[in-house]
Amino acid sequence: MDIVAGVLSGSRLALSRGITYVENEYDEAVDIMRKLYPHTGNAYVIGITGPPGAGKSTLTDKLAKEYRKQGKLVGIVAVDPTSPYTGGAILGDRIRMMDLTMDEGVFIRSMATRGSLGGLSQKTADVVKLMDAFGMDIIIIETVGVGQSEVDIVKTADTTMVVMVPGLGDDIQAIKAGILEIGDLFTINKADRDGVDKLNIELEMMLELNPKGVDWRPPINRTIAEKGEGVVEVVNSIEAHAAYLRESGELAVRRKDRLKSELFTMVNDRIVRYIAKQVLEAEGFEETLVNLQNRVIDPYTVVNKIVSDVLK
Amino acid sequence: MDIVAGVLSGSRLALSRGITYVENEYDEAVDIMRKLYPHTGNAYVIGITGPPGAGKSTLTDKLAKEYRKQGKLVGIVAVDPTSPYTGGAILGDRIRMMDLTMDEGVFIRSMATRGSLGGLSQKTADVVKLMDAFGMDIIIIETVGVGQSEVDIVKTADTTMVVMVPGLGDDIQAIKAGILEIGDLFTINKADRDGVDKLNIELEMMLELNPKGVDWRPPINRTIAEKGEGVVEVVNSIEAHAAYLRESGELAVRRKDRLKSELFTMVNDRIVRYIAKQVLEAEGFEETLVNLQNRVIDPYTVVNKIVSDVLK
Repeated sequence: MDIVAGVLSGSRLALSRGITYVENEYDEAVDIMRKLYPHTGNAYVIGITGPPGAGKSTLTDKLAKEYRKQGKLVGIVAVDPTSPYTGGAILGDRIRMMDLTMDEGVFIRSMATRGSLGGLSQKTADVVKLMDAFGMDIIIIETVGVGQSEVDIVKTADTTMVVMVPGLGDDIQAIKAGILEIGDLFTINKADRDGVDKLNIELEMMLELNPKGVDWRPPINRTIAEKGEGVVEVVNSIEAHAAYLRESGELAVRRKDRLKSELFTMVNDRIVRYIAKQVLEAEGFEETLVNLQNRVIDPYTVVNKIVSDVLK
Repeated sequence: MDIVAGVLSGSRLALSRGITYVENEYDEAVDIMRKLYPHTGNAYVIGITGPPGAGKSTLTDKLAKEYRKQGKLVGIVAVDPTSPYTGGAILGDRIRMMDLTMDEGVFIRSMATRGSLGGLSQKTADVVKLMDAFGMDIIIIETVGVGQSEVDIVKTADTTMVVMVPGLGDDIQAIKAGILEIGDLFTINKADRDGVDKLNIELEMMLELNPKGVDWRPPINRTIAEKGEGVVEVVNSIEAHAAYLRESGELAVRRKDRLKSELFTMVNDRIVRYIAKQVLEAEGFEETLVNLQNRVIDPYTVVNKIVSDVLK
């Protein structure tokens, strides 16, 4: 099966297989990605993050349906261990999503977030590019906004939306200070819960204190995603942000930054693997470890030697 | 001020300053760490992780007090954006902790989890070593168990405890599948809440299905940390696990693994910085980016070139 030709001609099977190649790091993957690269850059990428329990997946679901109504093709990449797509679902969630997965205009893929040696963000970026080359107009990346690596992934999107929810308690709300800076827009989901006004005011105050820029003030929308309420407004806000990015020229800047950080990640991944294989598993390394354990030598000296052995 | 001599003679000011040097990556930091390294390896390191809202900090607090009763010196490193130590506190939490921070036998330090370029786990390891050289008997690392990097940090401990809590909802419970494998012991905190038996049974079933090893079965304790209930039992479980590790010889194995992953991280950090500085900010790189944006070249080819330029 020619995956490149398949992806470019809209074969879902080819897309699915291409993603598997990327995920499992088959030798062919790089060649496939290289050939598809010229066909990327057309999709608009939306990142959605927020604490566990905020209802990100339900909102993603509804956003996808809204974009489908507009005739747009939608790809979803779930990099969230709490997402129903990635395995955190209770049965109800899975059933709810059935009609989305039956839609030929939507392609959902979840990424395993654990056990991968650093390569997760590169793989996510490659999956986004595969969906882009396939012809998706909108690609949504969903991550849980707690760990640094997940935040790193989502902030590479064109538009990043932070989903909050009232009443998760102070512990969880504390996270929001950290993800505030990456939000181009904010959505308070489950807006029929107590505490919605309080949360809204808190968010506004924080945005006031930490302005995102001169020209774009992140809007705060309210949704009840379960019922589809407020979803159209969120789409409108995303479109407004996209228009702002295009008109101001910031879209090109962001995409260049994304490219830069992608390159950086790819180089880094490659070198990390090299070190793992060549250096730390090299002969004599076991003896070094024993000497370290006995405090005969110190790790900082060992690191200096390894680094100067590895780098030109 | 001679930080090395100060740390070794038990000066809290020297310890505090040493940590600041490590955190801010002052040039002197490596030399300080190198000199202190022979004086490390005596502390027992406990990792505590779990979802936001599980009450990890309160439990850490109570464990520290229990160890203090035994006359042990306790260091606490909080790498948790939701921890009251790191800034996620409401006023009540801070007041509650006052008597702990007034105790000369306890040293608490929080680590900034955002904005650091990958170096967080190395810094955490160095702070642990500083506290170790200072003479702490017990060092507790507290992280939120959601992101991969936080999990990586906590799993380097001698004993890793996963804190769960009933009734946080399915979204959050979904996380537990991912952190189950790293738990040497489990604590169900806020055990006066509804759902404690259900959670206990779920955990037991999962441990049954995924046995940790032949000789050690992770105990499940229940606590109400706020009231200090069950804390002594947790300490006993930690001691039992420590005894098991020592008698089976696994402690040495774990510490060697920790050393290995620390070396790996340090080498990796160094090389990442090198790449960021030398390669991605090099002359001609801007042109490469433009060519990439115009799809004239592809990132995979660029990465190959950078890697072969950098590595020997």
